[in-house]
Amino acid sequence: MPSDHRPAAGEAPALGDPAVTGVLAQYLANARAPDLPTRVRKEAARTFCNWLGCAVGGSRHEAVSIAIGALEPFSGPKQATVLGRAERLDILNAALVNGISSHVFDFDDTHLKTVIHPAGPVASAALAFAEYRPVSGRDFLHALVLGVETECRIGNAVFPAHYDVGWHITGTAGVFGAAAAIGKLLGLDAQRMAWALGLAATQPVGLREMFGTMTKSFHPGRAAQNGMTAALLAAGGYTSSDRAIEAKRGWATVLSTARNYAEITEGLGERFEIGLNTYKPFACGIVIHPAIDGCVQLRREHALTPEAVERIALRVNPLVLELTGKRTPQTGLEGKFSVFHACAVAIAEGAAGESQFSDAAVANPVIVALRDRVQATAAPEIPPEAVEIEMTLRDGGHVAKSVRHAIGSLERPMTDADLEAKFAGLTDSILSPSGARRLLDLCWRIEELGDVADIARAAAIA
Amino acid sequence: MPSDHRPAAGEAPALGDPAVTGVLAQYLANARAPDLPTRVRKEAARTFCNWLGCAVGGSRHEAVSIAIGALEPFSGPKQATVLGRAERLDILNAALVNGISSHVFDFDDTHLKTVIHPAGPVASAALAFAEYRPVSGRDFLHALVLGVETECRIGNAVFPAHYDVGWHITGTAGVFGAAAAIGKLLGLDAQRMAWALGLAATQPVGLREMFGTMTKSFHPGRAAQNGMTAALLAAGGYTSSDRAIEAKRGWATVLSTARNYAEITEGLGERFEIGLNTYKPFACGIVIHPAIDGCVQLRREHALTPEAVERIALRVNPLVLELTGKRTPQTGLEGKFSVFHACAVAIAEGAAGESQFSDAAVANPVIVALRDRVQATAAPEIPPEAVEIEMTLRDGGHVAKSVRHAIGSLERPMTDADLEAKFAGLTDSILSPSGARRLLDLCWRIEELGDVADIARAAAIA
Repeated sequence: MPSDHRPAAGEAPALGDPAVTGVLAQYLANARAPDLPTRVRKEAARTFCNWLGCAVGGSRHEAVSIAIGALEPFSGPKQATVLGRAERLDILNAALVNGISSHVFDFDDTHLKTVIHPAGPVASAALAFAEYRPVSGRDFLHALVLGVETECRIGNAVFPAHYDVGWHITGTAGVFGAAAAIGKLLGLDAQRMAWALGLAATQPVGLREMFGTMTKSFHPGRAAQNGMTAALLAAGGYTSSDRAIEAKRGWATVLSTARNYAEITEGLGERFEIGLNTYKPFACGIVIHPAIDGCVQLRREHALTPEAVERIALRVNPLVLELTGKRTPQTGLEGKFSVFHACAVAIAEGAAGESQFSDAAVANPVIVALRDRVQATAAPEIPPEAVEIEMTLRDGGHVAKSVRHAIGSLERPMTDADLEAKFAGLTDSILSPSGARRLLDLCWRIEELGDVADIARAAAIA
Repeated sequence: MPSDHRPAAGEAPALGDPAVTGVLAQYLANARAPDLPTRVRKEAARTFCNWLGCAVGGSRHEAVSIAIGALEPFSGPKQATVLGRAERLDILNAALVNGISSHVFDFDDTHLKTVIHPAGPVASAALAFAEYRPVSGRDFLHALVLGVETECRIGNAVFPAHYDVGWHITGTAGVFGAAAAIGKLLGLDAQRMAWALGLAATQPVGLREMFGTMTKSFHPGRAAQNGMTAALLAAGGYTSSDRAIEAKRGWATVLSTARNYAEITEGLGERFEIGLNTYKPFACGIVIHPAIDGCVQLRREHALTPEAVERIALRVNPLVLELTGKRTPQTGLEGKFSVFHACAVAIAEGAAGESQFSDAAVANPVIVALRDRVQATAAPEIPPEAVEIEMTLRDGGHVAKSVRHAIGSLERPMTDADLEAKFAGLTDSILSPSGARRLLDLCWRIEELGDVADIARAAAIA
């Protein structure tokens, strides 16, 4: 005769004796925008800019259209923009859909320490919310930083055990990030912020089994929506645990076999996880980024064309062939799992964006012919983030390139100009050149904006 | 340099080679209402009736009001009834709020084998949906049965390990139940039903740490909402895993250390878990139900009044004092954790509904005085579902009662008349007597109804 009542009310320690959740909630409630270091604010703008380009770029994907079609009949007032589209939805549904589109190309930002994609859950919630209640650019960036801080620190505390067992950490930790960001925009005190984290903890999203299906991109979107719901309920006084993360039957114990709470509680306000955020230059898994990077560099340095290249020999970490060893990809999606195709498009087009992984690109005879002239050898002494490339040219010449850290890594971050080029490539089929330029300018000037909703409106299609 | 891409598309076995998820999805897609045994349909009506009374009865709780207040600004068209109230919300939000109110008194049904409260996630979703797309009573009961079947079988497969680690199984398994029920009402084929189960699997709800806070009742509500969302997305073609339950990084492996898939796949359509559903006669944890039952029986048999009773001596399983040993409860909620208070109200009022666990009841001098005359002794030889009661009366007499199985157990189920009395007690402060009678009549006649939405409308307040 089991019972799921707990023995007595009032057992949980008061927030006056803060543990992990309490420390975090108090930090979030008390943090002030002017205290953010300049470099942190700068990185937040870069994170936001990269996320926005991904969301607009992904907005035509079938997953986005299906989600809108399925949920629009139940959506509330047309409060918020669906980025890159004409539809408007209530802010909770907009957060979901924008989160889907920002991740659907797998081209969004990565906190490499945890493989969390930080912006999806947080920015998708915060930008939609800013269309409901006006938010200045300064406060918006602050909420974005705090959301990223929250999800990445909680992720740090349980990575890799939590990820290894099968959780898609972007969704499971991301829901805390969204709750923290919206909680901050709502001005929650420490008690209600703790409840918001509790309501987030109880609705994690994302199993890794879903990778390869549309449900993967559902995860950051639903995390955004769940976190916003958590903050809205807590703001209204909906009670939850004060110890949701660290309690015996709380999030970290139930969802992970390992926990390091110091990752959550130490150095708050001193070090910022957003400083560890990275941006993908190429629209595929990062394991083949070094090879693409090297090929793009060789193309530029030697003005290479496909016809000029006789043979390409790669020496790669064994992981590269294990994950992306597809010799004859048949679809664009399969092309993302072929280091051979990726090198061929890098030589032929000097890029590896979404259009280089289209079905058409994979079927292009020039690309196919060049792809078949790429060889790859697994070499355990080559680290995963490196590659050795040797090319034999038709004219008998040889060129070579050794990449230690691919562009987009922490060691070789994308420049602002790189991010602008990526943004342009993602949005050029959706926005006019002047519209894209204007949107990008708003992103870089975000801290000066009195109302961040200007950005959302500029990312809508009439 | 980790990557969260999976190696290649198309790796998942086709649904043509069904494993656990596939077998379940095919059963759900092919099941036909006329094949349901009569006793199963009867139990489904009882389950529904009990759930509806709980939802109407809980509709004035602060948690319900807060949730409506927080989410109404974002709700869509006024498609569905908030039971027991005047507000209307879109069907997804109505499912959430009705799920909260149905569980907020902890008075809803219990599948004792798993401690799942089956109706909350399933009926909350299905009744709201029926206000959007007309559903006959026959099809509604069928969807309810299939939803309960799905959540309880999945619960059976992972209980108790999954519950013991800290998951609130009503929310984590319940989301599958809601997805199955709404998927059936949407007429999904096996492929889309599998996707609906996949989208459900990836958004489990509920940590046991939340017990004792409003977030506990959020769980069945959010499970209803998530399951409905899953079915709606799958109906639109939003893809998910075909092996969400049994895959290496699927629901059962990630959320439980033990799995028995035969509980899911064997005997589908032959045995029905709803036959194991039970209904609480008393508004508190079932561990003190035997004592209340015995006191109510003695009161009736001997026309006892509080004044007539000198002393009450209980012999109880040690669990009773461990969980409900509160000697001097100060609030109604604390009263639920006091076997002494519970016996006192049972003698004084012959009932232990929500009003017997009010703050006023706990402060009532007659109850307090009688409570202090209750003694309880822990006796390991008494099973948790039993009690031995001896009373010394003021007139020098003695009466005694031995309860082997409390009313509301599988061995001594509540009769239809008991359920009617419970329904009346829950709704009498909210509906007029004639309104409550009419609603109850609709519930008992549910199979004859052409449009189940008639019930929802009859449960609204003008």
